[in-house]
Parts: sequence; C-alpha cells; structure tokens
Amino acid sequence: MKVAIDEIRNRSVAIFEKAGLSSDDAEIITEVLLETEMRGVFTHGFLRLERYINCIKSGGIKTDGSIDVLYDSPSWAAVDGKDNLGIVVSYKAMKLAMEKAKQTGVGIVNVKGSHHFGAAGYYTSMCADNDMVGMSMSNGDILIAATGSAEKTIGNNPFSYAFPAGKYGKIVYDIAMSYTSDRKVVQMDKEGKKLPEGWIIDKDGNATTDPGEYEKGGTLLPFGGYKGYGMAMMVETLGATLSGAAMTKNVHAWNTDEKCGGNVGHFFMALDISKLGSPDAYKNRVDDMIDEIKNSKKSAGVDTIYYPGEIEMAKMAKCLKDGYVEIDDDTMASVERVEKEFGLK
Amino acid sequence: MKVAIDEIRNRSVAIFEKAGLSSDDAEIITEVLLETEMRGVFTHGFLRLERYINCIKSGGIKTDGSIDVLYDSPSWAAVDGKDNLGIVVSYKAMKLAMEKAKQTGVGIVNVKGSHHFGAAGYYTSMCADNDMVGMSMSNGDILIAATGSAEKTIGNNPFSYAFPAGKYGKIVYDIAMSYTSDRKVVQMDKEGKKLPEGWIIDKDGNATTDPGEYEKGGTLLPFGGYKGYGMAMMVETLGATLSGAAMTKNVHAWNTDEKCGGNVGHFFMALDISKLGSPDAYKNRVDDMIDEIKNSKKSAGVDTIYYPGEIEMAKMAKCLKDGYVEIDDDTMASVERVEKEFGLK
Repeated sequence: MKVAIDEIRNRSVAIFEKAGLSSDDAEIITEVLLETEMRGVFTHGFLRLERYINCIKSGGIKTDGSIDVLYDSPSWAAVDGKDNLGIVVSYKAMKLAMEKAKQTGVGIVNVKGSHHFGAAGYYTSMCADNDMVGMSMSNGDILIAATGSAEKTIGNNPFSYAFPAGKYGKIVYDIAMSYTSDRKVVQMDKEGKKLPEGWIIDKDGNATTDPGEYEKGGTLLPFGGYKGYGMAMMVETLGATLSGAAMTKNVHAWNTDEKCGGNVGHFFMALDISKLGSPDAYKNRVDDMIDEIKNSKKSAGVDTIYYPGEIEMAKMAKCLKDGYVEIDDDTMASVERVEKEFGLK
Repeated sequence: MKVAIDEIRNRSVAIFEKAGLSSDDAEIITEVLLETEMRGVFTHGFLRLERYINCIKSGGIKTDGSIDVLYDSPSWAAVDGKDNLGIVVSYKAMKLAMEKAKQTGVGIVNVKGSHHFGAAGYYTSMCADNDMVGMSMSNGDILIAATGSAEKTIGNNPFSYAFPAGKYGKIVYDIAMSYTSDRKVVQMDKEGKKLPEGWIIDKDGNATTDPGEYEKGGTLLPFGGYKGYGMAMMVETLGATLSGAAMTKNVHAWNTDEKCGGNVGHFFMALDISKLGSPDAYKNRVDDMIDEIKNSKKSAGVDTIYYPGEIEMAKMAKCLKDGYVEIDDDTMASVERVEKEFGLK
C-alpha cells in the first residue's frame, strides 16, 4: 500500500521510542529503514521492524545505544556494540570512521557484539554523500555452501562500497554473497521456473536447476563459484576475525534464534577523497567512466546499462518526489500489530 | 621443463640487472616472478619477462626504480610509479603501506603511473607473512563487458586479499573479474568443449556457450553477472580514480600497445592485526574456521574443500622441497632469447 513518507517516519520513530530507544537512536534506525524501503530493498526495510521489537522485548537486543570503544587510534578503532540494534551500532561505527577520515584521511572501525546489519549500502552512502569512499561489510549466520561443500558453511555476508560521483550522484554497490536470495528461489519454484546453472545445490550437494530442491534441504551457492566463496571469507576475516565477533556456525540466526542471535561482526572504512585532491575532479572522472560504459554498444533487448545503485537511487528519488513509499500490506499489518501492543495510534 | 630454483633466480636477476635495474630491484622482480611461477600462476610468471625487457628497451618502461610520493600522511600515501615496472612499483608501494601499518595500524597507498601489476596475491602475501591483513588491486585495459553491454567496457581487474592463519599459514585470495581467462576459452574451443552459461557473450552481446564465438569478436563476462561487474568498478574507483591513473578505455594494453601502455593505477592496504590483540589468537580463529569448513559434508566427487590460496601454496611448497620449478618450454626459450641478446650465459 502507499504510505506517506512523513507518516511512516513518525510512526516508526514513535514505536522505537516506546521500545526504549533514545529519540536520536529511534530516528537513526527509522531513517535507515525508510531509505532502504524507498530504495526498493524491502527485505531490509520495515519488514524487519516487528522482529527488532520482539527481540528488544525478549531482552536479546538492548536499547541503551551505548557502544564501547575498545581500541582507538587516529585511523583505526574497534568497538563493541553491546547487543544494541545492528543498524544503530553500524550507523555510529561508520560515523566514527568518517570522523577519523576527516582528520587523517582514513578511518577504519571493526565491530563485535552487534546484531542484524540491515542494508550495507546505507552506511557507504553516508560516506559518498560526504566526499568519502565507503566500504562496509558484516558476517552473518551460515547460509551458503563453500565451493565443494554440500551444506551451509559460511554466511551470506553483505558487502558494500560507495564512491561519490558528479552528475550521477554516487555509485553504491550492495550485495550478498549468493547468486540470489532464498525468497527468490522459493518464488521461482511457485512460478514453475527453472534456475540458472550454479545458483543452488540439492541436499546431497549435487548441482540442480530445480528450485524445488531448495526447500528439500538444498543450499544457496556463492555468486561466481569459488570467487564468491572467497569474497564471503574476506567478509568473515575482515568483519569478524579481527573484532573478535562470532564466526560462521557460531553466529546464530537472529530471525529464528530464541535469543535473537548476537555478537555479529562488521567492518567499516571511510577515505576522505579531498585529502588527495579536488573532489570535483574525482567525481568528474567517475562521471566520464559511467558515461563511457552507458554509451557502449548494448546487447539485444537492453535499453540501459546501469551502474551499481542506479536503479535503487531512481526508486528513492521517485518516492521523495511522490511523497510516499509503497510498503507491502503484510509489513504494514506487522507495524500495526506493534503499535496496537504499544498502545500507539 | 624442470628448472632449478637457484638457477632461474640467478638468470633472472642477471637479465634485469643487464636491462638497467639496480641489484635490489632486479631481485624484487625476480622474487615476485619466481614465487608466482612456483604457485602455478604461470600467466604472471617468467612468461612475461621477455615483454618486460622489450618494453624497457623501447623506453616504454623505466628502470631507475624511483617513485615519487605525491601525498604522505601517517596512514595514507599516494605515489607516482613514474613508468617503472609495475611489479617493482607495487612491491615498494606495499612496503610503504606496511611501514605505515606498523606505526599507525593502517597503511593505504594509491598508485598512478605504473605498469603491468603482476600477481596481486604476492603483495597481499607480504602482509600475511608479517601478521598483517593485506588488500591489493589494479585496473587494466578494458577486457570484459559491463552487464548489458555487448563489448569490452571495463578491465579484467585483479583483486587480492590475504589474512594470516596459524597452522594453515595464510588465506590468499587472488582473482580477476572474468569467470575465466581468454586463454582458457580458446583452449576449450580447441578441445571441442562447451562453456558453462554466463562465461562469454558473442560479438553482438548474445549469451553463448560456444567458446568459438570468443575469437569471432566475443567478450568475457564478469563472474557472477552484475556482482562481478560491480567488483570491477570498485577496483577502477579505488585503484585508479583516486590516484589519477588512466581509467577504462584510456588504459592501453601493455602487452600489445606500442608504448607498452602506462599510467595504470593500483590500491594497497595493510592492517597490522597486532594492534587489536594477540596475532596468535586471530590466527587460531582463522584455523578454526578453515577446519570447520574443511570438515563440512562434501559434495559427491569432492575430496577436499579448499580455502583461497591453498592449492597455490601447496604447489609452491612442493617446488621448494624439490628445489626446482616446472616452467613452460616456450617461456624458457623466450628467457634464452633475452639472454642471448644481452650476451649473457
């Protein structure tokens, strides 16, 4: 259904305040969920609100918003999220990375003790909007198979980078490590479609293009075979090994675990491009590259060659112009359940 | 043919010294080529020596080994490789990043004015061997198609990270952005094999599994579709935009260009893990992760689940044990041509 932007923003802030977050933190998580929803990444938008609240109610997720800085130096810090909402922790960690970058050019922050990461691209966008390069990543519960494995062995770890551009705004790359999500596989099964080669294996680890094998115990495969597997491992080592967060099978699935998971690890990097030269000059160089790629010869049936994040930014611009965002009916029903329980509205 | 390690090392050093490099620089490039050859990555080993020498003779590549530091701060530097051999420039740039990391925890170095990168994994291994995390990448001449494009639009940009481990030594991930190399496609055509879906497009941008279409004007595709395309763009922005190096179609192919290309851009990062805690503790955590993945249920026909770099390190260990390395006959013939011309041996 169509929901006015101001309306969903106010309702979300009220919910998170009622749940115990400070006004500032309630605004942070609301902005992240709202922007993610407007970008069309509904899986990381208000769909998650009810579960976040339930985790807060059960005590699995804390609301004091305080994070401990365990190691601090001019360009590098390590923090403990102390079981706060992963989005609030991540926002604060990237802010800290950006402050360091403003001073020294480079800011890196490792995080442990966090929860569900939310949309990786939000944090890197914060950098790109401030003439910085951003990188963000997080590990998660095991969901995809290492190359050669017949079962879940490593997280479908989100990874994002962003780079500021000129007329194109910014490049925002935001991926997970599987070819596609489990939702998409299940959906394709319902529609009687076949999967492309390499997307999943069946319960015995055999290659299959039948999406029905997924729910019979199949496993998602990393994108690009062993190359995607190695990227998942990069996130694990940079995002969790260094900070001391839980790794691979020791990460509990936050959306099903009784205690809402916990001790997830993240990695954030910000580079202030103004230290190396004129930001406008760099942005123009990025625009030129995008122009060149967009103007290249297209394959049959292709109207536009996109750069990373372009489609999502267009969706968001439309929402801002229209003043509303399209939110799934079931998601809004879950928001209303929370409001009712909290005596809001 | 089998060539003794000491023999090829001495012969290579003599060649590069004769070509005008200092003894130190001749040793640097020799060690990189030799280790790469021992790892089995023959495409970036001594196969390239003759071309490097020819580029030095034509003046396209310089031998003074001096690089200019254009920007310098405690955790970040930008350097100009001044048309020296890409491997020599890259080695020195990563050394600089590691010196910064030793002091401040973090070292990042952007490079412009360089040449052919060589094996990305060598530089990150330098970090892992010194209790540091390493990241390295370089852009290159356009070779793969952006998603939706029917032609070459972006470089097949090498990317590597490495992380120190305990009993497993280190994880060294080293990839290019295509599913496979052009050599492999041509080889599969000769053998009458079909390609997996998604590896190449034909000259009009249509999907094809016929490797014969490649030499008729086809183009390599990025691994994992748009996800690999975005990784190629990350390397372009981090590796070339920031340093002011040439980008995409302005990068000339070093192996065919009359002037041997030039102004390639690289990006190096080193993180000293000892700043955050006991290196041994982190290494043990990595070992545990690898053990867990290796001990997971295997797909039919799979004997071993590998971690990134494991196969290459085993090949190198065998060479060091045997005292010799297997080098392609044509490659050794090219080395002898150079020696003859230089009046060596």
